[in-house]
Amino acid sequence: MTSRKAIRSQHADGLSAYLEKQRNLIEKALSKAVPAASVRPATIHAAMRYSLLAGGKRLRPILTLAAAEACGLTEPTRVLPAACAVELIHTYSLIHDDLPCMDDDDLRRGRPTSHKVYGEGVAVLAGDALLTRAFGLIAEITPAKRYPLAVLLEETAKAAGSRQLIAGQVADIEAEGRKLSIADVRFIHEGKTAAMIVLSLRLGAMIANATPRELKAVTQFGQALGLAFQIIDDILDVTQSSEQLGKSAGKDLKASKATYPAVIGLESSHKEANRLTQKALGALKELGFQSVRLHQIAERLMIRES
Amino acid sequence: MTSRKAIRSQHADGLSAYLEKQRNLIEKALSKAVPAASVRPATIHAAMRYSLLAGGKRLRPILTLAAAEACGLTEPTRVLPAACAVELIHTYSLIHDDLPCMDDDDLRRGRPTSHKVYGEGVAVLAGDALLTRAFGLIAEITPAKRYPLAVLLEETAKAAGSRQLIAGQVADIEAEGRKLSIADVRFIHEGKTAAMIVLSLRLGAMIANATPRELKAVTQFGQALGLAFQIIDDILDVTQSSEQLGKSAGKDLKASKATYPAVIGLESSHKEANRLTQKALGALKELGFQSVRLHQIAERLMIRES
Repeated sequence: MTSRKAIRSQHADGLSAYLEKQRNLIEKALSKAVPAASVRPATIHAAMRYSLLAGGKRLRPILTLAAAEACGLTEPTRVLPAACAVELIHTYSLIHDDLPCMDDDDLRRGRPTSHKVYGEGVAVLAGDALLTRAFGLIAEITPAKRYPLAVLLEETAKAAGSRQLIAGQVADIEAEGRKLSIADVRFIHEGKTAAMIVLSLRLGAMIANATPRELKAVTQFGQALGLAFQIIDDILDVTQSSEQLGKSAGKDLKASKATYPAVIGLESSHKEANRLTQKALGALKELGFQSVRLHQIAERLMIRES
Repeated sequence: MTSRKAIRSQHADGLSAYLEKQRNLIEKALSKAVPAASVRPATIHAAMRYSLLAGGKRLRPILTLAAAEACGLTEPTRVLPAACAVELIHTYSLIHDDLPCMDDDDLRRGRPTSHKVYGEGVAVLAGDALLTRAFGLIAEITPAKRYPLAVLLEETAKAAGSRQLIAGQVADIEAEGRKLSIADVRFIHEGKTAAMIVLSLRLGAMIANATPRELKAVTQFGQALGLAFQIIDDILDVTQSSEQLGKSAGKDLKASKATYPAVIGLESSHKEANRLTQKALGALKELGFQSVRLHQIAERLMIRES
């Protein structure tokens, strides 16, 4: 009998190849998901494509695919519209966050930010257009029996809305320069990062017609992983260079941003990220061997350097 | 036998009362459609409510209700989520259009614009949040047999997307100070204004389970009315004061904006608005007496002064 551990180690060799394969699927789907740069007005479509197709880890859509797999769906194409939708929402939020009236950032995914290339007006509209198109992609999902389209749509609007993703961004703006508690930082991180990571996973699970127990496990995995991911981001902002990150490093400190290292120090932040990663892995026990990719991704994210 | 004309004249007396009644319904629904200003983070919800609940004609949601009525649905509450959704999208587009990096406007619906009160960062996010919530409201629709939720969602994302609403706004930005043809101005107006007016009407008709012929008539009505509405807006910008409009008057001329009066003159613009209104009214013949409110609204819009 092959042990769980043996299977995991066998798969682990292939993680990089797996991520590469999924990323290729996603890149192709993303390119098809928005109009060609030749479609009138060309500027907006060029700007949408510039930010959307600038590479990046594609963590969120990969999680959507892996969550569907973990809940028994072996055909990734059924999940691609949802996977693209979460990446479009993520990209829109980056474009708007980088604006001069928000984080005022010049560098993203190793390239000048949207407003640096297209001007602020078009950057705002490119973000708006990506967000709007994301909901068009939700309409393209073929829902599974347990989770009709209305549920998928409602969850997407909630996660991206004023109590979650946008709540995190607003709280982040308001926090600048103020003394924060760990609860404040956690509120920001749960909104800005964890909400969309949880959504990415839940959409995949729901399209795979997950049982209520499976959906709960995926959600708990996402809540812990999302927070761990953002804490590691905070740590990397302090310890890595802009070249390594593809975005401006050290900016959190400069802007007195709400981060875990600023509130509890680097060492405790590391410990907390590790604790949350273990918690995430624990939640996967409910899902069995099919969740091996989610397991590996969580482990890989813990030790990432960019 | 009561003639069509007699019924219409009888109803005409009651148009103001009808509009007032519908507006009350809509105001109540809008207030419930977004979180209270006490919900954390308070700033974003206060900003959403500030712009959304600032009054205004509520033309788009009224058209949604009237289109449903024209297609035989007598119960307006079934249409309210869609009616609110179009008004949220309209309001988000106004907030973003008014930003300093776009039209840079200080006055809207008789009050300081969102970024004047809350700052640019929160104004961008309040727009984002209203757009996102609009799609949450689409999820609350109980669709009729002929038009499942996926169709309603797809149409909404298209009308608000980069080829229609946002296309008009981008073309408008790019047109400033350049010499334009009437076809260019028409492209902008169809995107910026007509697309969402057509959507407002179509959502109402589809929720009322319109026949294909009815839906076609409503669409043709909306295309002509939407363009007529924007031409009259252009005319009012030249001929009315800021107090009468509740927004900055004369700004189109100052910014060398793309308008009908600028390209074909005031008199020809009047004639074109009138021609389009007649065309819109002609399309209603398909719908019978139930479309009397749409008929009256189109006539009223032609002679409006703000």
